[in-house]
Amino acid sequence: METLHRIEKDFLGEKEIPLDKYYGIQTLRAKENFYITKTDISLFPNFIKSLARVKKACALTNFELGDLTDAQRDAIVQACNEIIDGKFHDQFIVDPIQGGAGTSTNMNANEVIANRALEIMGKPKSSYEFIHPNNHINMSQSTNDVYPTAIKLTLHELIYKLKDSLRFLRDCFEEKSVEFKDVLKMGRTQLQDAVPMTLGQEFKTYAVMIDEDIYRLREAQTLLKEVNLGATAIGTGINSKAAYQRKVISNLREVTGVDYVAAGDLIEATQDTGAFVHISGILKRVAIKVSKICNDLRLLSSGPRAGFNEINLPPMQPGSSIMPGKVNPVIPEVVNQVAFEVIGADTTISIACEGGQLQLNVFEPIIAYKLFTSINMMRRAFYTLGEKCVKGITANEDVCMNNILNSVTLVTCLNPILGYEKSSALAKEALATNKRVYDIILEQELFTKDELDELLKPENMVNNLMKETTK
Amino acid sequence: METLHRIEKDFLGEKEIPLDKYYGIQTLRAKENFYITKTDISLFPNFIKSLARVKKACALTNFELGDLTDAQRDAIVQACNEIIDGKFHDQFIVDPIQGGAGTSTNMNANEVIANRALEIMGKPKSSYEFIHPNNHINMSQSTNDVYPTAIKLTLHELIYKLKDSLRFLRDCFEEKSVEFKDVLKMGRTQLQDAVPMTLGQEFKTYAVMIDEDIYRLREAQTLLKEVNLGATAIGTGINSKAAYQRKVISNLREVTGVDYVAAGDLIEATQDTGAFVHISGILKRVAIKVSKICNDLRLLSSGPRAGFNEINLPPMQPGSSIMPGKVNPVIPEVVNQVAFEVIGADTTISIACEGGQLQLNVFEPIIAYKLFTSINMMRRAFYTLGEKCVKGITANEDVCMNNILNSVTLVTCLNPILGYEKSSALAKEALATNKRVYDIILEQELFTKDELDELLKPENMVNNLMKETTK
Amino acid sequence: METLHRIEKDFLGEKEIPLDKYYGIQTLRAKENFYITKTDISLFPNFIKSLARVKKACALTNFELGDLTDAQRDAIVQACNEIIDGKFHDQFIVDPIQGGAGTSTNMNANEVIANRALEIMGKPKSSYEFIHPNNHINMSQSTNDVYPTAIKLTLHELIYKLKDSLRFLRDCFEEKSVEFKDVLKMGRTQLQDAVPMTLGQEFKTYAVMIDEDIYRLREAQTLLKEVNLGATAIGTGINSKAAYQRKVISNLREVTGVDYVAAGDLIEATQDTGAFVHISGILKRVAIKVSKICNDLRLLSSGPRAGFNEINLPPMQPGSSIMPGKVNPVIPEVVNQVAFEVIGADTTISIACEGGQLQLNVFEPIIAYKLFTSINMMRRAFYTLGEKCVKGITANEDVCMNNILNSVTLVTCLNPILGYEKSSALAKEALATNKRVYDIILEQELFTKDELDELLKPENMVNNLMKETTK
Amino acid sequence: METLHRIEKDFLGEKEIPLDKYYGIQTLRAKENFYITKTDISLFPNFIKSLARVKKACALTNFELGDLTDAQRDAIVQACNEIIDGKFHDQFIVDPIQGGAGTSTNMNANEVIANRALEIMGKPKSSYEFIHPNNHINMSQSTNDVYPTAIKLTLHELIYKLKDSLRFLRDCFEEKSVEFKDVLKMGRTQLQDAVPMTLGQEFKTYAVMIDEDIYRLREAQTLLKEVNLGATAIGTGINSKAAYQRKVISNLREVTGVDYVAAGDLIEATQDTGAFVHISGILKRVAIKVSKICNDLRLLSSGPRAGFNEINLPPMQPGSSIMPGKVNPVIPEVVNQVAFEVIGADTTISIACEGGQLQLNVFEPIIAYKLFTSINMMRRAFYTLGEKCVKGITANEDVCMNNILNSVTLVTCLNPILGYEKSSALAKEALATNKRVYDIILEQELFTKDELDELLKPENMVNNLMKETTK
Repeated sequence: METLHRIEKDFLGEKEIPLDKYYGIQTLRAKENFYITKTDISLFPNFIKSLARVKKACALTNFELGDLTDAQRDAIVQACNEIIDGKFHDQFIVDPIQGGAGTSTNMNANEVIANRALEIMGKPKSSYEFIHPNNHINMSQSTNDVYPTAIKLTLHELIYKLKDSLRFLRDCFEEKSVEFKDVLKMGRTQLQDAVPMTLGQEFKTYAVMIDEDIYRLREAQTLLKEVNLGATAIGTGINSKAAYQRKVISNLREVTGVDYVAAGDLIEATQDTGAFVHISGILKRVAIKVSKICNDLRLLSSGPRAGFNEINLPPMQPGSSIMPGKVNPVIPEVVNQVAFEVIGADTTISIACEGGQLQLNVFEPIIAYKLFTSINMMRRAFYTLGEKCVKGITANEDVCMNNILNSVTLVTCLNPILGYEKSSALAKEALATNKRVYDIILEQELFTKDELDELLKPENMVNNLMKETTK
Repeated sequence: METLHRIEKDFLGEKEIPLDKYYGIQTLRAKENFYITKTDISLFPNFIKSLARVKKACALTNFELGDLTDAQRDAIVQACNEIIDGKFHDQFIVDPIQGGAGTSTNMNANEVIANRALEIMGKPKSSYEFIHPNNHINMSQSTNDVYPTAIKLTLHELIYKLKDSLRFLRDCFEEKSVEFKDVLKMGRTQLQDAVPMTLGQEFKTYAVMIDEDIYRLREAQTLLKEVNLGATAIGTGINSKAAYQRKVISNLREVTGVDYVAAGDLIEATQDTGAFVHISGILKRVAIKVSKICNDLRLLSSGPRAGFNEINLPPMQPGSSIMPGKVNPVIPEVVNQVAFEVIGADTTISIACEGGQLQLNVFEPIIAYKLFTSINMMRRAFYTLGEKCVKGITANEDVCMNNILNSVTLVTCLNPILGYEKSSALAKEALATNKRVYDIILEQELFTKDELDELLKPENMVNNLMKETTK
Repeated sequence: METLHRIEKDFLGEKEIPLDKYYGIQTLRAKENFYITKTDISLFPNFIKSLARVKKACALTNFELGDLTDAQRDAIVQACNEIIDGKFHDQFIVDPIQGGAGTSTNMNANEVIANRALEIMGKPKSSYEFIHPNNHINMSQSTNDVYPTAIKLTLHELIYKLKDSLRFLRDCFEEKSVEFKDVLKMGRTQLQDAVPMTLGQEFKTYAVMIDEDIYRLREAQTLLKEVNLGATAIGTGINSKAAYQRKVISNLREVTGVDYVAAGDLIEATQDTGAFVHISGILKRVAIKVSKICNDLRLLSSGPRAGFNEINLPPMQPGSSIMPGKVNPVIPEVVNQVAFEVIGADTTISIACEGGQLQLNVFEPIIAYKLFTSINMMRRAFYTLGEKCVKGITANEDVCMNNILNSVTLVTCLNPILGYEKSSALAKEALATNKRVYDIILEQELFTKDELDELLKPENMVNNLMKETTK
Repeated sequence: METLHRIEKDFLGEKEIPLDKYYGIQTLRAKENFYITKTDISLFPNFIKSLARVKKACALTNFELGDLTDAQRDAIVQACNEIIDGKFHDQFIVDPIQGGAGTSTNMNANEVIANRALEIMGKPKSSYEFIHPNNHINMSQSTNDVYPTAIKLTLHELIYKLKDSLRFLRDCFEEKSVEFKDVLKMGRTQLQDAVPMTLGQEFKTYAVMIDEDIYRLREAQTLLKEVNLGATAIGTGINSKAAYQRKVISNLREVTGVDYVAAGDLIEATQDTGAFVHISGILKRVAIKVSKICNDLRLLSSGPRAGFNEINLPPMQPGSSIMPGKVNPVIPEVVNQVAFEVIGADTTISIACEGGQLQLNVFEPIIAYKLFTSINMMRRAFYTLGEKCVKGITANEDVCMNNILNSVTLVTCLNPILGYEKSSALAKEALATNKRVYDIILEQELFTKDELDELLKPENMVNNLMKETTK
């Protein structure tokens, strides 16, 4: 039934587009050419909205410079607003991994906006003589400035969300650090018994660690505020008016509410992916640290009888199809895997950034895809970790305290008094005889019981720092 | 409306399951616990089928050992067969990235098969006293043997598909190598003009390269034939009868038609992920080589006026939103990106394999996820590359020949006669004066024109190898 | 001849130390235990000096707190000063890759300083009753605070040197950008002819790119100013006096002249390697960008006859053992390889950071080793690139200009006037007929010759940006 | 004093060479150009010897084809033999990381062999009219076939050595598996108590794991037997006689005693680095598995009082500068770090392989450097691990047995009798009441004491596998 289609053509030929679709021929070609992930860019709603915000800023600017009519501007702006409101996202059908440095994504946006704008104007779709995807929607633009700008807008926004998830996770640890502030336990270095600390200090550490990452992410966001909108094809601003570049950045600020600035050298900014590999490095940093925390949680909860067994993670699901009653640390385990995903993504992004050539990095699509995916996965994982694991952790205080009482490395605190050699000898004897250090010292009458009790008081060993950190 | 739900319980409590669903409480818990990728394991139909094949082999074995009734066996086997036929895949809803080392995936399979088997037997869902997910479907099994076995079955099958795509791609290059066998061109080392070859030789190289990878993949498949089914929890075969292990492998061969064998040491096999990191390394090898080929295609087709311009890639879509008539090498570009994805996946897999502890690698879910995804993406990318790019490549014979005629490095073939110093001097003069080497030699009367024409005949330089390769 | 040795013992037994050596038994054990790289830590003189600076700050503090005598302090400080002056580095013999989280490196320093201090006091080596490696040199310290602090001091200093090398490289590109400011050439996206620019703009881009990296490195240095000195074993400050921590940081500032600060939470700071993975990410960023530049230089100088041939790199060495007169871009090639090394190092560092457990990351030795090596290699590579390559680059102006005159994508600048479709048609015809766009337009009488000359003036296309960047 | 130098020149100019040096002008240029690692290729004696073996095979072939005189052949062969015997390695001074795809290494070999051959003939150095580095030593060759061939020879040999170290390590684990065959212990999955096994089984696993890797390395060696000697510049065999290629391979077999074969397609073989990335993947596999083993050893020996404490590693050195008596698992720790190095090297190699362009991969120098270094480090690390750690491991049998007796997951073996739900309930009660499962079952009179003792006998649970593995 040919009436259900409209025909579009480009310099390679023509194609039928279903009448109810807003995209056009270039989107369709791209859909056919790139069948890689079996997903499409609507997977990232923030990104679709960012594209619409950029297009809106451009349309406003072109109007101000006299290159769009009132009617054109109104229709385009309304179309963009609708997309920003979450409409028409199902019309964004191209694969996020694509050749052409994002041209297909840009053209998908140009075509959807053009056809929706035509509809608003009461014109049939594809009547591009009124509003044309290239001549009007893409006016004064190139994929090479629009696409990376939209990526940066998206990342900037996604990192806010990521920070929210980290703040939530930090607070979960913070609460536990208060709850566990009096639980004395053995600190460990190299998995070997070291010196006492509190479980509260241990959990506080995780809160502090995450807090620092939030700060690092904030710094990284500033890198994203520098965009190359106005650069057009290679940064020389070809096909845009002299006044355009300044105005369009101003409109972009207006549209987004974020203080974006133009890159100092637009040719550089158009080819450089330094900010992306930088962000990826920071994301990896976050992933590595949370993964380390998960490794610790799994270690500390190992057991219940043949492990460290210092803490209990809340049971989330039966742990085994064969071993009844077994409960596994499934939440930290899944978060570890997300971290591995992010570390791998950083490798992908690094190679993609290194492979850029001359005036453009053609691999931006996979860079964006991996960055968006890493952030989304981490965000979900961090909420999961806080809500389904950290909040429900309980301490096994007896186990923790017994580990201190039995410890050989208690001699460390006698080190300043007895010296390294004598202390070593005591430790060695305790291990050989399987006795407590405490008992050996009394046997050898090195101290009176009272003296020793004071010296070996775990609180004393732990207090030093507590004073420092609470000051 | 509580009648639309059934209630299931486990030792953590109870949950409502929609009546029309085949999965049970453990699947539901997992769905709630793991919300990471926003996809589910039905993304990999081969994997769902592999799970069903393993479960079927186990049920047959348990029946043979007298532990299932005829009715139970029949129902279970039918349920498995239906899944193998592609039914009920929408009931496999757990996230591929999950904690618990695959327990949730295994329990998803156990529950769906149990409830479908109950239905076949005319029993209501959840009436597990007749067929129980753990006691009957998972009988003599553990996630720790079922899950990695199903992964290996899946990989074994997916690699067949990957090899098919490579064979197709190889043939595309092979055809071009015949088509271009008489196109003389300049060979390049370090991007500098080197010595002549034919474009046919260049494309033949790509065919040979790919062919070798097919062979390497075949070798790698043999690693996948060694499974640990029968190992149960940690490889000691606990909870399975002595005769079980041998029989279940035999049944697995029957069910799959592939000659799987039991690992020699089941404890080792249960914790070792060597085969997975190995396969990942081979996949990366394939990716790297095809990426290199794509880099070459992009280089050779650079231009059209200011580049190498030796070949033309078929135009697949307008290349620019701003530069009319520009056509980009979009297909090689997207294939490059798939290669970067696979290289990054190898990093992820390496870290996941390294992180395994003691009797089990808990990170198998992400290992499987990345391997499946890498293969699927590569397969699609290779068909795309062959069909939408290589097949349509044409040669610019004049450009190729002119590059030879102008070349300075033609002096290489005079090297054995004139010596390295004299030849170097000629090359240097040609570059300095911007003359042809040919003309300088005649000026210097080093050879007569006839001698020189014979010596400098590109065919001669190229023939040496052609003789060798066609022998 | 036993007189040539002295005997030292620890709780594992005793060992002979050559009389002329300043290190002791623990250094010797470490030397025997760790035979991995066949190098030793004296490979990094800055690191040895940093260790001495830390030890000096500690000794000054211990003296101030009344725990060292005047004589002890004087001897220790002098010994440290000598090491800071470059002496005794040959006594630092332990492998940089070592188990024990750096204990062997710390003990190597403790022993060398102790024995040199004893010598200064006129005592025989090993007479540790006067000055003891652990009791005096390591007083109030642990490897776990001394070692990472010394690493940070070293990195802080090395990054200054790295920035110097980048500044040099930037200036080399900057000079060329001025030299080439009037050389018009074709800009390329996706290796395809795009729109005109100047070679000066292209080289300016590289200068700008590098300049931004210098700024990023400066930011990263601030992360290194936060140290955990005073944390001792696990961050609780055990075995140090309450006043020690504040004083020792103050002394460290004095000794180094750098405004180091104590980490806010010493337990966190002792186990966290976030700063290292962060720095590694920034180093990778630098490497990737310079590698991209080298890729471009190799592309732009490809030829001389069958390549882009827009620029000439200075010939550094004969390029081939078989092809006379061939000259290769050997300098960019070696710099690329250094970048690959740095990217791989980042993977190593990431895994090492992720693998840290509980109160300490035991893998700090390889983290330090890779960071130091990456920086050193990059520094050497960047000077080499600037001095031996960039400075000598010359332009082939004719080639550059001809590429523009022949270009099809000149139609881009007619886009705003003729529209995307008409412009595309012109480009297509030019390609099909192998004519110049210019000639076709005149044939079709779309513009007069004068109009066209004005429109197609490359300067105009390029100027847009030039105005922007010079403003 | 000019008499102490000789003058050499090439088409770039002339240089002074110290009279006592055997290398020439091109080596010197390379030394000046590439100052990256501060080491030189003599770091890899096997590689220097491989170069000499290749050069010897070529000289023999050139003589057979009538292109060298008896005197030339004799002198060249003797010079090569001397190098193979370990002489003159200090004349190989170029940096292993170099531009030019190995040309500098090849020329270093050509020059040293030429000058030593001249000396043997009684001629002064540099009198290249008798024996010329390019015209005679490099006759019928190119860097592009000589260099990768020498790399493959070296890798083939180094992998033999690596396998030796793995065999040693395997045997160490094997011995321990026999020693510990009766030590019952708790098996763990996901760090949680699972089901019983023996410590002997656990160590046997490591032996099996390593054994499989030895087999994989053997397979990988076959990839190295395919060389491209005879390919010359780009694989077309230019400048070599038709009969040369077959003969030179035959001579190479003779010289090396290894059955090398010519690649089927020399153009492909000259540009393809598939074998290198493949080998790197296998090396990474080995590294990952040994790293996993080291992680396990560190876990199992954690404690001594607050950890798993199932085994004791032999104390190798005092573990702490501050904590007396602390002993750390320093040997596994250093081996872990070597593994991380190898994993990072694989990233470097992958990028270098992907970056190869057209007829040659110019990044072979770093590929070789990383592969050689990875193997050498691993070899040293594996001997260290076996000798200084595994051999001295002892078991804490009481700790191991108590973990079983206290275990909750003993209910697993009642699963087939009581069913999953009842067993789960027992486990849950044991955990809640902190009782032994054993006691609860007797309380509930589910079995008589005798029945239960038989059912819960750890030997039974373990035997299932033991029967299987000893069959």
